[in-house]
This record gives sequence, structure tokens and C-alpha cells, in this order.
Amino acid sequence: MDPWTLLDRMHVGHFRIFDLFHHLLRSPETGDSHDFYVIDAPDWVNVIPITPGGEVVCVRQYRAGTDEVTLEIPGGMIDPGDGDPIEAARREMREETGYRADRFESLGVVSPNPAIQSNRCHTICAWDAYRDGPQRLDGSEVIDVELVHLDAIPSLITSGRITHSLVIAAFYLLDQTTAVPAG
Amino acid sequence: MDPWTLLDRMHVGHFRIFDLFHHLLRSPETGDSHDFYVIDAPDWVNVIPITPGGEVVCVRQYRAGTDEVTLEIPGGMIDPGDGDPIEAARREMREETGYRADRFESLGVVSPNPAIQSNRCHTICAWDAYRDGPQRLDGSEVIDVELVHLDAIPSLITSGRITHSLVIAAFYLLDQTTAVPAG
Repeated sequence: MDPWTLLDRMHVGHFRIFDLFHHLLRSPETGDSHDFYVIDAPDWVNVIPITPGGEVVCVRQYRAGTDEVTLEIPGGMIDPGDGDPIEAARREMREETGYRADRFESLGVVSPNPAIQSNRCHTICAWDAYRDGPQRLDGSEVIDVELVHLDAIPSLITSGRITHSLVIAAFYLLDQTTAVPAG
Repeated sequence: MDPWTLLDRMHVGHFRIFDLFHHLLRSPETGDSHDFYVIDAPDWVNVIPITPGGEVVCVRQYRAGTDEVTLEIPGGMIDPGDGDPIEAARREMREETGYRADRFESLGVVSPNPAIQSNRCHTICAWDAYRDGPQRLDGSEVIDVELVHLDAIPSLITSGRITHSLVIAAFYLLDQTTAVPAG
């Protein structure tokens, strides 16, 4: 199966943290053209900071999309100045939680939504995370830090207290990294 | 921590499968107002169809967001006429793959992205899925059906061949449902 052909691309608008584009695409199978809208944003990073005691450094914050206070892991946009996803992970974790770590491990890269979003999300584990000082939050951010033991994560997800698909995908990748083959 | 207060909501535009809104929100902590953009779409459903032989009925299709052909599970929007998420799962699975099933199990509900999207995604497992007939695709859909054994899913995810965060979250939920406690 082949990709479709881009016939036209138009910028619809800039909306603070993403841009919206209209794409006119032609199917290689049918030859017909169809309209699509694509949300374009910088790549994102999500970090799972884990303390030496096996606790995940989580963040609780208000989210405008669902109009709810959610429990998540730290993360955000990879800035042009970050250099690479691990630097972005280090920065976001430090800003949002006040934690640092010396050992970072890339767990993988996922697509937030390949149907309508162009960007990727890098998932990084920060091992042996430790508290370094106060948070450094920007104007609109109000974030509570909450330590949750790794063993409690599955029930927080199945009970619907952790709901963000990118956070759940991050823990899937962590499970694969730390999984010990049976037998 | 309390939710923020909605001061103003403005419809920015309709973009085929979602609407975009501008929200002006006031923080209960700081009293300051900030702008947010919220993508509003119907709730979605994702289905993991599993055959009696333990194979997942996957779909391969072109995705405009990432401009790639992806490997995913069937799914889509819950239509007003669907009644409930399981009916939507049954319909989407039948349309995209030609498969039916008699036993459906809800695995949970996730938020595709609580920061910028208002909707939810229901994850349904369709046990004992069987081929019923040809696909029923709409105008722009070209979808190949591909059977993948459940045992191969983790390596497809860690190797980056399955990348959709909602699909990975679905398999996380499935693992929790079928997990046998150690010991």
C-alpha cells in the first residue's frame, strides 16, 4: 500500500500550541481526491521519573481539553533549544516537578494520532530521580507534584484515574523495557 | 486543586471530523485569565478483534496526519445512531475488516489528549472474531486487513511498527484484563 499524493496544502491558522493545515490528497488506489485537516505541532516528550524507592513523580493539573484536573507524568513540547528529546525531558521534568535525574533512557517514540496529527511523542524514563528544588512554572501553569508507587499505576489506569492515552502508552513501553520473560 | 472557570467560548471553525473552539479560562489559584484552544470531536471507539486462534484483526491504511501507512486496530467515531460504544465497535469492525463477533468486552475509556481534546475513546475487545464477508468502506477509505498474533504485538510496538498512542493504550488495557497475577 502506497502513501497518498499531496496536491495542495493550505495553512488554516495558528492556535497557540499548534497550527492547522488543510491537505488535498489523491488516493493512489482510486485516483480520487479528498480533503483532510492536519494538526501540526512540535514533537512532544513525556517523562516517567522514577525515584530509587520505585515511586513515579506524577503531576496533577487542570486540563482545558477535558475541563478536568488530571493525573499525568511530566512532559511538554520539545523546544528548538533543547537539542534532543532527553534534554527536553530533563528540562520539562525539572520545571514541572523540581526533580532531576542522572540516568535517562529512551523508551520509544509514538504518534499521538497519525490520522490527524503530524507530530511524534518521545517517551523517556528518568531513573533514580531526586528532588532538586522548587518548580519553575510558567504563567499559566499550576501543577501539584504527587508521588505514586509503580505498583499502583495499573490500577490507577484501569480505574480511570489516569486517562491520558500518551501516558498509558508510556507505561506500556516501560513495561516492555522492564519485563522479565516468563519461564 | 479546582477546575478553571470558563469566561468565554468561541467556535473557531468546523474541520470535517472535528470542531475547534477558543476558551478563555480563569485560574482559581492565580485569578489570571489565559487562552486555550480545544478540539471537539465525537467520542471515538477502538476495537481489538481477536480470533479463536489468538490473532488480532489489524488494519493497514494511509494516515494523512503522519503521511504514512500505519498498522492499527479498527475504530472510528461513535455515530449518533450507534446507541452505545459496543454497537459502534461492532459497526466499525464489520465495515473496516469484514469481521463480526458475538462477545464484546469494554476494556476502559481513555482521553486521547486531555490538554487539547474534549473527547473520549472507548476501547472494546471483540472476542472470537470471525470473517463474515467483504469490507464496507466509505469513499475515501482504502484498508488492508492483516492478522497478527497477539504474541507479536509487544515487539511490533517496541520496534515502532505500531505507533498510534490510542492503539498502544488499548493493548495496555487488554494486558490488564487478561493479566494473571504473579505467584
